[in-house]
Amino acid sequence: MTTVTLLTDFGSRSPYPAQLKGVLRGLCRATLVDVTHDIPPHDITQGAFVLASVAPVFPAGAVHLAVVDPGVGTARRPLAVASGGQFLVGPDNGLLTAAARALGEPRSFVIDAARIGRHPIAPTFHGRDLFAPAAAALAGGLPIETLGIPAGAMVNLPGAPPQRSAGRLLGHVMYKDPFGNLITDIPGAWLGDLPAQPLLQHPRGRLPIRRARTYGDASGAEVLVLVGSAATLEIAVNAGSAAEALGLEPGDQVQISS
Amino acid sequence: MTTVTLLTDFGSRSPYPAQLKGVLRGLCRATLVDVTHDIPPHDITQGAFVLASVAPVFPAGAVHLAVVDPGVGTARRPLAVASGGQFLVGPDNGLLTAAARALGEPRSFVIDAARIGRHPIAPTFHGRDLFAPAAAALAGGLPIETLGIPAGAMVNLPGAPPQRSAGRLLGHVMYKDPFGNLITDIPGAWLGDLPAQPLLQHPRGRLPIRRARTYGDASGAEVLVLVGSAATLEIAVNAGSAAEALGLEPGDQVQISS
Amino acid sequence: MTTVTLLTDFGSRSPYPAQLKGVLRGLCRATLVDVTHDIPPHDITQGAFVLASVAPVFPAGAVHLAVVDPGVGTARRPLAVASGGQFLVGPDNGLLTAAARALGEPRSFVIDAARIGRHPIAPTFHGRDLFAPAAAALAGGLPIETLGIPAGAMVNLPGAPPQRSAGRLLGHVMYKDPFGNLITDIPGAWLGDLPAQPLLQHPRGRLPIRRARTYGDASGAEVLVLVGSAATLEIAVNAGSAAEALGLEPGDQVQISS
Repeated sequence: MTTVTLLTDFGSRSPYPAQLKGVLRGLCRATLVDVTHDIPPHDITQGAFVLASVAPVFPAGAVHLAVVDPGVGTARRPLAVASGGQFLVGPDNGLLTAAARALGEPRSFVIDAARIGRHPIAPTFHGRDLFAPAAAALAGGLPIETLGIPAGAMVNLPGAPPQRSAGRLLGHVMYKDPFGNLITDIPGAWLGDLPAQPLLQHPRGRLPIRRARTYGDASGAEVLVLVGSAATLEIAVNAGSAAEALGLEPGDQVQISS
Repeated sequence: MTTVTLLTDFGSRSPYPAQLKGVLRGLCRATLVDVTHDIPPHDITQGAFVLASVAPVFPAGAVHLAVVDPGVGTARRPLAVASGGQFLVGPDNGLLTAAARALGEPRSFVIDAARIGRHPIAPTFHGRDLFAPAAAALAGGLPIETLGIPAGAMVNLPGAPPQRSAGRLLGHVMYKDPFGNLITDIPGAWLGDLPAQPLLQHPRGRLPIRRARTYGDASGAEVLVLVGSAATLEIAVNAGSAAEALGLEPGDQVQISS
Repeated sequence: MTTVTLLTDFGSRSPYPAQLKGVLRGLCRATLVDVTHDIPPHDITQGAFVLASVAPVFPAGAVHLAVVDPGVGTARRPLAVASGGQFLVGPDNGLLTAAARALGEPRSFVIDAARIGRHPIAPTFHGRDLFAPAAAALAGGLPIETLGIPAGAMVNLPGAPPQRSAGRLLGHVMYKDPFGNLITDIPGAWLGDLPAQPLLQHPRGRLPIRRARTYGDASGAEVLVLVGSAATLEIAVNAGSAAEALGLEPGDQVQISS
């Protein structure tokens, strides 16, 4: 049975996630899987990171319904995207772009609200009245081309790519996980450029850290760099919070070097 | 496949929601859908609001299991309710009443604990031992009349209905959503009574606000009134929290006028 | 259809729970049921309590995937356990032991990572790459003996059993629920040893309390002792928090006596 995943900033205590689920249950027979409803309100960047982390793990045919949509009801475009055998549905504000690329070669379409929507479409809740019906249509097997006209390029979030030069790796903190681990955008394959005890420079200081394979490799509270489960470099403290120890947040630049 | 939704104040980190799910999985083949388990403890009013917001979006046959039950094990009645082709199960303390009316013409029954319960019924956990089995029975197709005797009138929560007179709309804040939007009980259809820049009066002040269609219509941090996704008036601040800006909470009275 | 439940300390806002679900959706057709993803980070004791509270309520064939795993990637063993017709999968750090015993007579196996894992296995995320595939295999009907070699004894969490002597019951707070009720490990059947108004002694004081059947039996803010839904003694305050009133936390010793 097809899967529809749900990722929103609606808050897991609000009625809004269940309203999406009610619409989906009425329109298709897909299995519903919550990703999270606790993306910080309007934090498109964090929503995009989580979605791109999660989508590639799902099997072919999965439909990912993602709604972090501060511009709801304005001119931003509603999108349906096919990529790598899976589908993404949500606003064209950068939320879907990283996931679409992580899955494969995206083909995107502007959802035709008049044909796909649940009328009247509330101008403050396209999640319920437009995106959920679009996701249900895809889960039910409707060809994506029939949902609307080709959308061309999708909105990109700002951000420089990670850099590598002569023993110096430069990137950004992308995510602070609930353990306080700091996930960066620096490819894990670059770890080999670093010595056993590289130097970490960040906006609030510099310190020697240690290359490791997993958290438990640490002795005491030292700061580690390892290849995380997202296959990028991760900065961690065993049985502690690297985010707290270093005062770093998503968006902060980090440099790791010899 | 039938849907059983779950709404409780058990806390999503406690074992109690999963105990309901275990009972349901053992007794029926319904698809389980979490509404929320984070209704504030014992807050029947908020539970009733969320349930009434969510139930009408679900398709015919859905069973809504709702447990916010400070009087568990005392004389308050356990109810099963049919309304508008859907079902509600929970305590007779006002939790189900608004949803039952939103769905249609309710017919309510007192659940016969001796016949429906999972014995021994823990006097502190009717959710697991009485309401979940009743929800499973309804999901499995058991006619509601066989669950118990007719219950007659259901308990009502206190509260005055919204009022409308000569350009003056009077109502209450029903819900503060995770974005800080304030959902009122004033019908959205009454918005036409108001000028483009009406006056908002509330327990902690009065200020001019602006009629809008969606959040992004605002310029800057002005306070907006719009028809929300619940088809009632909603007070909002674009990219900000109206609840914080105004200091309003559920239960507060609001008047919007010329 | 088989059920796979998920219990983790990954945080419901992180991408990690959905990564488990994506792997499971790709490998089996089981129904997925969230227990919780908000066990406090690395709190094996609380995870073990919640798992043991929940598992016995599920029907035969259920697979419980539990990951609170501070030692991920180190020498601690990955386990699959059969007990009482159900299955448990997770690290051998004490997380599974109480649930395995609550279900029946456990038979445990060390999961063969080379054969069962999703390669390459991230040394920081066995939940996704080893435990989820093992859970999917069990949900799909693979005999547990084929997952690996017998594991023998499982790791036990430290902790003394409750004691009973001449009108004196001694035990520990096992869990503080979201209402502030304090669940102990003292068997509910021992309540009969106590008078109507026993004495509670705890690390921060002593006070007379009252035997009750349910929360609503209280008059005012008195402290109650009753048989909770876990069939152990529970210390509660009606419409209030016993945890707050008494300043007690999980792990604290309590004595209830004549």
